[in-house]
Amino acid sequence: METGFSLDKRLVEDTWAVASLPLCEVLLAKDSRFPWLILVPRRAGATEIIDLGPEDRDLLLDEIVSASEALKAETNCDKLNVAALGNQVSQLHVHVIARFVGDQAWPGPIWGHGEAVAYEPPVRDRLVERLRDLLPDTQ
Amino acid sequence: METGFSLDKRLVEDTWAVASLPLCEVLLAKDSRFPWLILVPRRAGATEIIDLGPEDRDLLLDEIVSASEALKAETNCDKLNVAALGNQVSQLHVHVIARFVGDQAWPGPIWGHGEAVAYEPPVRDRLVERLRDLLPDTQ
Repeated sequence: METGFSLDKRLVEDTWAVASLPLCEVLLAKDSRFPWLILVPRRAGATEIIDLGPEDRDLLLDEIVSASEALKAETNCDKLNVAALGNQVSQLHVHVIARFVGDQAWPGPIWGHGEAVAYEPPVRDRLVERLRDLLPDTQ
Repeated sequence: METGFSLDKRLVEDTWAVASLPLCEVLLAKDSRFPWLILVPRRAGATEIIDLGPEDRDLLLDEIVSASEALKAETNCDKLNVAALGNQVSQLHVHVIARFVGDQAWPGPIWGHGEAVAYEPPVRDRLVERLRDLLPDTQ
């Protein structure tokens, strides 16, 4: 099922790995301004949600819900933004972003807004660990 | 199930009605630069996908797929953008947008990009009719 899949290089560069769920790799964007997960289905060649078969679509929805609930529980955010865009990186990926009233891009979208701000490594490590704990256990 | 639901006034102002699917009202944004559907689940008080119960989430996914396939078939677009943001209008709604390499906002997101351009009424009427024909028949 996963023949030929490899993560897009730009996604690898811009994120840290958080977890592997049944369908998706879960990544954390390297931008401390916005707690921001990216889900990437391990399906070679998929660029759109409609490229996935029905079972994979259901898994994707389950994993979007899991990522949303984990991010909400961890950050107590005011709003979630969930989006599959792919205009710049065509490999199918879904953003799940914790938004706060008054955050740097509020109420606009975050993509293309200013420059990413690096996490302090201990903050990042703790966030990755806590999100991993909040996601379904796939061991 | 639909007790207390009414479409947000801003969504009403900014769109035309296309169809009623089992869960969602399907609307066309009043912006001819981007063929752009908006799906609004008829569930009072929902602001996030995770506010919906499991059955409604499955319906929402089905209807996102239907809207995506209809828009793709009608426009032969290069990319679909699918997003639930809700930073400005909190009522849960999902954007399904046909994007083209070189469109006015490409490769950025469309939200907040310049000013909407009105459709010529006959163009709009034909588009609404064709999209309605391409969506599942709910009569």
